[in-house]
Amino acid sequence: MARRREWTQETLVAGVRAGNKLALARAITFVENGDPLALALVRDLFPHTGRAFALGITGPPGVGKSTLISALVRHVRARGETVGVISVDPSSPFSQGALLGDRIRLADHFLDEGVFIRSMGTRGHLGGLAEATLQAMLVLDAAGKDLLFLETVGTGQSEVEVGGIADTVLLVLMPGSGDSVQALKAGIMEIPDVIAVNKMDHPAAKTLLNEVRSILSLDREREWRPPIVLTEALREENIAELWEAVERHRAFLGEEGRLESRRRTKLAGEVFAVASSRAKQHLERAVSGDPELRRLLDEVHERRLDPLSAVRAIMERVFKLEDEKRADAA
Amino acid sequence: MARRREWTQETLVAGVRAGNKLALARAITFVENGDPLALALVRDLFPHTGRAFALGITGPPGVGKSTLISALVRHVRARGETVGVISVDPSSPFSQGALLGDRIRLADHFLDEGVFIRSMGTRGHLGGLAEATLQAMLVLDAAGKDLLFLETVGTGQSEVEVGGIADTVLLVLMPGSGDSVQALKAGIMEIPDVIAVNKMDHPAAKTLLNEVRSILSLDREREWRPPIVLTEALREENIAELWEAVERHRAFLGEEGRLESRRRTKLAGEVFAVASSRAKQHLERAVSGDPELRRLLDEVHERRLDPLSAVRAIMERVFKLEDEKRADAA
Repeated sequence: MARRREWTQETLVAGVRAGNKLALARAITFVENGDPLALALVRDLFPHTGRAFALGITGPPGVGKSTLISALVRHVRARGETVGVISVDPSSPFSQGALLGDRIRLADHFLDEGVFIRSMGTRGHLGGLAEATLQAMLVLDAAGKDLLFLETVGTGQSEVEVGGIADTVLLVLMPGSGDSVQALKAGIMEIPDVIAVNKMDHPAAKTLLNEVRSILSLDREREWRPPIVLTEALREENIAELWEAVERHRAFLGEEGRLESRRRTKLAGEVFAVASSRAKQHLERAVSGDPELRRLLDEVHERRLDPLSAVRAIMERVFKLEDEKRADAA
Repeated sequence: MARRREWTQETLVAGVRAGNKLALARAITFVENGDPLALALVRDLFPHTGRAFALGITGPPGVGKSTLISALVRHVRARGETVGVISVDPSSPFSQGALLGDRIRLADHFLDEGVFIRSMGTRGHLGGLAEATLQAMLVLDAAGKDLLFLETVGTGQSEVEVGGIADTVLLVLMPGSGDSVQALKAGIMEIPDVIAVNKMDHPAAKTLLNEVRSILSLDREREWRPPIVLTEALREENIAELWEAVERHRAFLGEEGRLESRRRTKLAGEVFAVASSRAKQHLERAVSGDPELRRLLDEVHERRLDPLSAVRAIMERVFKLEDEKRADAA
């Protein structure tokens, strides 16, 4: 195993670009640890990114996302495409608490040179999880992976919004989860591009399919109508059909410059998300390190200063920001 | 109906403190609209807050939170206590898309002078939803409500973290929702103080109860062991038992200064959350209004500038912040 001191910025960039697994693993560890080398690395790699097709896989915990990803990896590998998988779902078998069966199935992929799988912890990222995920995706992209799969939990449950990073978003649902129509609507409102109804053998699969169809039919304005595919990930059933649906959306994006304009919007959104998370960290450090700011919080607790006046004082002190949006009415 | 121009800061403060429903409704509308009057109002009302007991009610959409709240309101009203309800769950019947039955049941409360119910939209809050929710809770507190109920969806699905505002947190679950043990764990890790297993007639109620018990038993360090109450909110079954469990936790908080220290931590957290959301808004306005910053984003899109260097440039420009946490490795 290469030790940290053996990697320089140059050897790491070269190793990543050659798709070397050790270099990739090390680069993403630097990213996760917020190592200064990670920033330099991403800067050097960035001109070589933008080639990979990024599929986001999202959905509630327990619907079988990881098993589906495992089956999709097998499918695309059989077609000769290389793939990088990043999971930011803490309940994913890629992360922990895996079912033994899943682990065994995943183990195949870990031995395959054309596959790189990495779970990003949801804690302890110095620069925030959104930032680390963006960097990890760029590293895998620069490594020449044809496909990037990003696993997240859905609808605002995660710091990382898959819709902000992926080219195509696959929403995975399962029947019999007792989700109310409202909950279902909320998931579908996120506007997935493809929907998989997994565990298709479940007696309620048809009901869920119809519910999803009727929710989608409410939105007639949409240029792209998300296909719905019934799957049984554990038995790898309908995986080819699911992939075909993903590819159809990819082809759709390829027309009329849609992919370019989508990526422009998403990259801008990502930059904004990272900046926003940095501002939050800065605030955290400032408040914890400044006795004057801590005194303000004491005054709030004693009800001598109201919370919003405290906020204003903090903004002025930490960000040199005057309250710009509201005049003082007093 | 009183029109806006008829309310002055003084009459509104007096109206709120008298518990006048029109004054309350108007004050919360000012809060929601980010009206300058709201800040002055909260400042004047703040010294009169801290008396109400705040119960947060959280859980996934569709488990019956609103029906349970409705039953709890009836229960506490029968005991002579006044109550304010704020819902920030967009899928709540308090908000929209209500079942007709629920609406009828809730209608009783709207006619009751001792009850004030308000749903906060999740969009269009100038100052962010967390800020508006905090202000609305303070307004109801100053209005002399004995109890405040705050309804949210659980586990990071909402901008408003109920654990950051409420004194006691009630987690509502339902059987047969097919939640994986991982999903359940995630919900329970939020550390609710009381757990309701609603829809107790469901055949899987006992199974869920046992699962919840076994998850709770993993955490032996806890000073407070959350009671689990089986309820059937639609038929108002076990509502007294549930309220009794909430009151037990309230009594527990009352011992050894726990409530004071909990509130101190939570108020500080709230101030931090609001400041953080303000910083984000400031960033949003700065990026959208500044051609230089928009040019940076174009360069990122053209892969001439990497996203993290763009972030650094934005932070320097918007917040006058140098990158403090990592040295430049280049």
